[in-house]
Amino acid sequence: MSAARAAALAARLVEVRAATARLCAPLGPEDMVVQSMPDASPAKWHLAHTTWFFETFVLGPHAAGHRPYREGWSVLFNSYYVAAGPRHPRPERGLLTRPTVAEVRAYRAAVDEQVQALLRTPTGQRPEVLALLELGLHHEQQHQELLLTDILHAFSRNPLRPAYAPRPAPTAGPTPPLAWREHGGGLVRIGHGGEGFAFDNEGPAHQVFLHPFALATRLVTAGEFQAFIDDGGYRRPELWLSDGFGAVQAQGWEAPLHWEASRGELRRFTLHGEWPVDPSAPVTHVSYYEADAYARWAGARLPTEAEWEAVASGQPVAGPFVEDGALAPPGVEQGSLFGGAWAWTASPYVPYPGFRPAAGAIGEYNGKFMVNQLVLRGGSCLSPRSHLRASYRNFFPPAARWQMTGIRLAR
Amino acid sequence: MSAARAAALAARLVEVRAATARLCAPLGPEDMVVQSMPDASPAKWHLAHTTWFFETFVLGPHAAGHRPYREGWSVLFNSYYVAAGPRHPRPERGLLTRPTVAEVRAYRAAVDEQVQALLRTPTGQRPEVLALLELGLHHEQQHQELLLTDILHAFSRNPLRPAYAPRPAPTAGPTPPLAWREHGGGLVRIGHGGEGFAFDNEGPAHQVFLHPFALATRLVTAGEFQAFIDDGGYRRPELWLSDGFGAVQAQGWEAPLHWEASRGELRRFTLHGEWPVDPSAPVTHVSYYEADAYARWAGARLPTEAEWEAVASGQPVAGPFVEDGALAPPGVEQGSLFGGAWAWTASPYVPYPGFRPAAGAIGEYNGKFMVNQLVLRGGSCLSPRSHLRASYRNFFPPAARWQMTGIRLAR
Amino acid sequence: MSAARAAALAARLVEVRAATARLCAPLGPEDMVVQSMPDASPAKWHLAHTTWFFETFVLGPHAAGHRPYREGWSVLFNSYYVAAGPRHPRPERGLLTRPTVAEVRAYRAAVDEQVQALLRTPTGQRPEVLALLELGLHHEQQHQELLLTDILHAFSRNPLRPAYAPRPAPTAGPTPPLAWREHGGGLVRIGHGGEGFAFDNEGPAHQVFLHPFALATRLVTAGEFQAFIDDGGYRRPELWLSDGFGAVQAQGWEAPLHWEASRGELRRFTLHGEWPVDPSAPVTHVSYYEADAYARWAGARLPTEAEWEAVASGQPVAGPFVEDGALAPPGVEQGSLFGGAWAWTASPYVPYPGFRPAAGAIGEYNGKFMVNQLVLRGGSCLSPRSHLRASYRNFFPPAARWQMTGIRLAR
Amino acid sequence: MSAARAAALAARLVEVRAATARLCAPLGPEDMVVQSMPDASPAKWHLAHTTWFFETFVLGPHAAGHRPYREGWSVLFNSYYVAAGPRHPRPERGLLTRPTVAEVRAYRAAVDEQVQALLRTPTGQRPEVLALLELGLHHEQQHQELLLTDILHAFSRNPLRPAYAPRPAPTAGPTPPLAWREHGGGLVRIGHGGEGFAFDNEGPAHQVFLHPFALATRLVTAGEFQAFIDDGGYRRPELWLSDGFGAVQAQGWEAPLHWEASRGELRRFTLHGEWPVDPSAPVTHVSYYEADAYARWAGARLPTEAEWEAVASGQPVAGPFVEDGALAPPGVEQGSLFGGAWAWTASPYVPYPGFRPAAGAIGEYNGKFMVNQLVLRGGSCLSPRSHLRASYRNFFPPAARWQMTGIRLAR
Repeated sequence: MSAARAAALAARLVEVRAATARLCAPLGPEDMVVQSMPDASPAKWHLAHTTWFFETFVLGPHAAGHRPYREGWSVLFNSYYVAAGPRHPRPERGLLTRPTVAEVRAYRAAVDEQVQALLRTPTGQRPEVLALLELGLHHEQQHQELLLTDILHAFSRNPLRPAYAPRPAPTAGPTPPLAWREHGGGLVRIGHGGEGFAFDNEGPAHQVFLHPFALATRLVTAGEFQAFIDDGGYRRPELWLSDGFGAVQAQGWEAPLHWEASRGELRRFTLHGEWPVDPSAPVTHVSYYEADAYARWAGARLPTEAEWEAVASGQPVAGPFVEDGALAPPGVEQGSLFGGAWAWTASPYVPYPGFRPAAGAIGEYNGKFMVNQLVLRGGSCLSPRSHLRASYRNFFPPAARWQMTGIRLAR
Repeated sequence: MSAARAAALAARLVEVRAATARLCAPLGPEDMVVQSMPDASPAKWHLAHTTWFFETFVLGPHAAGHRPYREGWSVLFNSYYVAAGPRHPRPERGLLTRPTVAEVRAYRAAVDEQVQALLRTPTGQRPEVLALLELGLHHEQQHQELLLTDILHAFSRNPLRPAYAPRPAPTAGPTPPLAWREHGGGLVRIGHGGEGFAFDNEGPAHQVFLHPFALATRLVTAGEFQAFIDDGGYRRPELWLSDGFGAVQAQGWEAPLHWEASRGELRRFTLHGEWPVDPSAPVTHVSYYEADAYARWAGARLPTEAEWEAVASGQPVAGPFVEDGALAPPGVEQGSLFGGAWAWTASPYVPYPGFRPAAGAIGEYNGKFMVNQLVLRGGSCLSPRSHLRASYRNFFPPAARWQMTGIRLAR
Repeated sequence: MSAARAAALAARLVEVRAATARLCAPLGPEDMVVQSMPDASPAKWHLAHTTWFFETFVLGPHAAGHRPYREGWSVLFNSYYVAAGPRHPRPERGLLTRPTVAEVRAYRAAVDEQVQALLRTPTGQRPEVLALLELGLHHEQQHQELLLTDILHAFSRNPLRPAYAPRPAPTAGPTPPLAWREHGGGLVRIGHGGEGFAFDNEGPAHQVFLHPFALATRLVTAGEFQAFIDDGGYRRPELWLSDGFGAVQAQGWEAPLHWEASRGELRRFTLHGEWPVDPSAPVTHVSYYEADAYARWAGARLPTEAEWEAVASGQPVAGPFVEDGALAPPGVEQGSLFGGAWAWTASPYVPYPGFRPAAGAIGEYNGKFMVNQLVLRGGSCLSPRSHLRASYRNFFPPAARWQMTGIRLAR
Repeated sequence: MSAARAAALAARLVEVRAATARLCAPLGPEDMVVQSMPDASPAKWHLAHTTWFFETFVLGPHAAGHRPYREGWSVLFNSYYVAAGPRHPRPERGLLTRPTVAEVRAYRAAVDEQVQALLRTPTGQRPEVLALLELGLHHEQQHQELLLTDILHAFSRNPLRPAYAPRPAPTAGPTPPLAWREHGGGLVRIGHGGEGFAFDNEGPAHQVFLHPFALATRLVTAGEFQAFIDDGGYRRPELWLSDGFGAVQAQGWEAPLHWEASRGELRRFTLHGEWPVDPSAPVTHVSYYEADAYARWAGARLPTEAEWEAVASGQPVAGPFVEDGALAPPGVEQGSLFGGAWAWTASPYVPYPGFRPAAGAIGEYNGKFMVNQLVLRGGSCLSPRSHLRASYRNFFPPAARWQMTGIRLAR
């Protein structure tokens, strides 16, 4: 049984690692070094950090006689695991021109080989080792989406406006009207409690009491958001949280990130270069503050994460995603709660009742970030489909805009 | 009925306004101008702003033919009500040497007189006017506590360490052992739904589902907190939220605010000057981050606001408080959930289900701050007793330390 | 001889100290506490610091058995003399509500009395003691001007725009045309080398070689400067030093400090309140960057300090000044190099050849500031007349604008 | 004559451009993108900017029918020439991953070819075109030194401490004792007035009056500077300018840049990696503040630029330099005023009497920086020898430390 699971994970390892490599295919060494803001990381660093994760948490404690691949690299590629040792300052990841991209690729190959070898041993087939390996795979999938949003941000700062990939043929049809799915409320069970992988922050499963509510059947579109802008949305403090309007003024926000007025129209910078805003596509790259203000303007509100999950639970994870490294078309499949854009919820990111992080450095994965952030749900068109589920809790600070973040209304 | 309520509120107005004045008695004009940090306000500004509140929300719309007391003062003393017009920048309140303290006192007297006159008219006895007046009284009581914590902060920045008031005789006996009050959980009703005054953020009353829990019978003491310090609490990142440890390092925190090591012992600066830390008194002037880290170190956690309220509901509001402007002794009455120090809860400050702020500028009182803050419960020894109740939700950002904030554990 | 000089200085002490007190007559305690920016100091602090100077450098080392007036005050009122002990942080002078204004006035009286007593003793009549006393008098005169410019800055930040003093009747006649006084250059002697008081930075007297030049016979007027503004002066980078245009953009400069466009005209905030700009008065409150850009726009340049002194040497110190605490009318006496406004020179503030600061704390008076500043010459209408002379070197950083700084052209 | 000069410059162009290329030979594409601080620039940017200089100032106005090499590149590679159009923000040069290194190399080749073609035409042989070409060559030589100091800084921020080049065999013998060369003072002529190339800021040649002085025969060594450190130099405010000690405290300086205490000894990071400090080599990477404090500690002072030039004038430009892209050994040739390290002078960077910058964008080369900087003289071991001369005025702000800046004493 463990041997079978080990074999399955070995095959999965090959797939996930290859998908990451494919995401870097359009990038040159210059592109892979840059860090365009402290929140973002260089592509090269993503390649190395995800490898460090396997080396540190799988090979280090479990592969007999394992020696660090290179002395000094752990400091460079440890993100925030204090218990795993010192860490290079996050805002200075872009200063690391060495190791080179080629050296990092060799690092990936070496660690992959050692993990595969471990999986063929009884030690490597122990459940706790396989659990760590599976965590590493999901961890790498998280970084696949980050790698893309970070490159998008980096390219957006270059006046030459390079495109990561050619633009696919648009497939979006007309936008269906916004409809509402009613829910009767009452005691519902949320959180992950069954089979399959989940991060620690998705549990324990527990009951919450909900009041009756309705959830929108689709995400807010760029065209709808443009109506908010045209109605003076960014200049009307009564629509905003106080901190939100402070951010509008301090940052000079007038539209979502990567939008700009030029050549007489609203245009949007994407991984495919700069194009006119497509009014039927979901609005993305909005902060929580903008999502909240939009909802207030629209006479609605953002859902809580429990409301979202109460509806999403049991639904298929359908939607346009990054499949094996190929970018999905920008449209959004109607009627699914997954894909398209991460939906900001009204729920601050706090532990579920009875939550206990794992012991040791792995316990730092999620728990220590449970303040000053909001939960997002559902995944985006840049999320690998196999990475998502109804109980998945993503989280970002309320001013973050460089992710594929959008709006789904509730009332 | 309305006439009787008007008369009662007229008497209450006299009391509350006099209490504010008494709090300023130990202060000279120099003391009343200073603003020692952007979050704090000068005493003179508190005197004027609370008066502006009555003038703007009671007299302005309801007193026939009301003219602003002085042209240009509304800008100076409007705190954050965007709908009430422009506002002097908050960090520059300490630059306003004019109007003088004497001029502000005359302003208070004039507005008091006009409000009393209004209360003797049928218009002034209409329920909506009385409701605004009552809101103004509770507003002023909030500022009474702020005035004291702001003066404490200002005096703490003066190397001469002035005392606001002489030290009362210590009354605290030995600290009782920490005990736990069990609660069985289930569906409980929280929020304000009955008679009497409440702020809008305390409603609507609603049901929440609680898991069984226990709440500590008293606040954490300074002596207990010192054990945390002695155990390296401020140097162990595994005890902290990531943002919290970031604050520790960026701010150089090594103890609660106003504590310092000097002359071979831990001392604490208070409104009575600097004294050795009293180990039996509740620890105060800790941030949410410190409260959270202490709880983790102690093998416990902070309560949610619903847990706190489920226990506090129906209990008497007993405790040492500021009564009519006289500072209470520093001890804490055992067994009460009120007074002593505000208890940080684990609950981010979010709207209750179905919350709707009032229309107009008054709607800015609470609702627009519902992000990036944590709820505190129970009041402190500087809170006027008549200002508190079980449903009261105070809120501050997680790094705030200049208030009388403390720790009550749950598990 | 020394006794006679001691008696003369005793009388001078009474005059200078009384003049400072008179400058504070229009101010209330609230006004005297405020510090509106780190470069400025509260009026109360000026009163105390100038007293501390006499106590520290005259009484401390020379009055037998002198004890500090109050323990802990030296830290508060030491400005920047590292060798004289620790110092309260400069940006926090406005947080010192205690000692009160009344206490500081008592401090002044006590130190005055002790100095007068010392002057009646043989010790107090020793030349080195009298030299320190005389230094203290000139030091206090420097602070008289600072006290006024600091109050002007503080009042300018108050939207009520208080006036320090009523407006005197304007006396300025028509502006004479700008003329040029030619100088043939060659080897000239500058610096202080003769009788009478001078600061250490005015010596040693020494020779410099000058090329032939011409110096304007009067200061640039506000009307002339307005022509620079109207010609787009603040928007044309080719007129500015690179750092200067950086300051324009970073600070949003569009006119001299205390000027603003309102009610359809250019107005200027002064110690007499806000008034229309008087085109015939000298422009003041310009930075070195603005003076330099104006000169370039006008096809001229700023003089070096040696050029200025070569012309000023031997001229009478005439001009409108603060005489005994009475503000002079705002006009400028034509043809004098003194008064009106401090003239920015093109000379960085560096030591003269052979300069040696005095030993001990007094040596910090000038020498340690000889970098990143420019020399100004001639005094302003706020300078006490008896404080000025041809060799006097004032100095400020190039972006400073809160002093009475103006422009005299050369070519 | 012009044809001969054109041919000579054509050959010189090949040499200088090849030398720049050779400096990049040890660098990979990753290394060439990074910008480790706002003052520094990526190697790729240096390659492109020096090319842009030739394209903009030589080809643009003088090559018939010249079209920009690529639309949009001028914005990227214009450094600070406002009159030459908009400029990419300096601190964001490190965000430009495109154009790639290969594309920039192709740009270099194309512009070189076009300039060579121009030089074969009568237009290209006109004196004003040749003068611009020669300016471009000296401009490129300036950037050769910057490219190396910027790479040194970038590599210093990488914990792996990469070496740019292998360490040459040390050649320094014992340090000769410090001796003094006397100069009698009087009227001397300084500035560039004769044949050969000079930047505009080196003229006009003019007379200055000097007092007798003596100049040290060699630079201060690392060993001598270590004695200053060991004597508490960085902790004694009386040795420092006030701004200098402020920098020490704000930046935490305890030694020159790139020095650090590790493994029980003082070590220094160089282009050859990290090595023990060589006590006989000149101290480098000190700010003006440190040079000034060292001189005060040593009982001496820094020379003025006129003093330095009065001695250097007529001496041969001998010393260890970067010759054609090969790094010189780290020792310093004794007795020469050139090479080794740039000597901070006590002279603020101001225009010489009668200085007029060139018309147009080229006039921005030097003149607009004449404030807040100090003059340095003599060149360093990273300066191309053919780039130096006695009248050469380099300049940096007083806190700058990332250049090869050292100390030569005067008295």
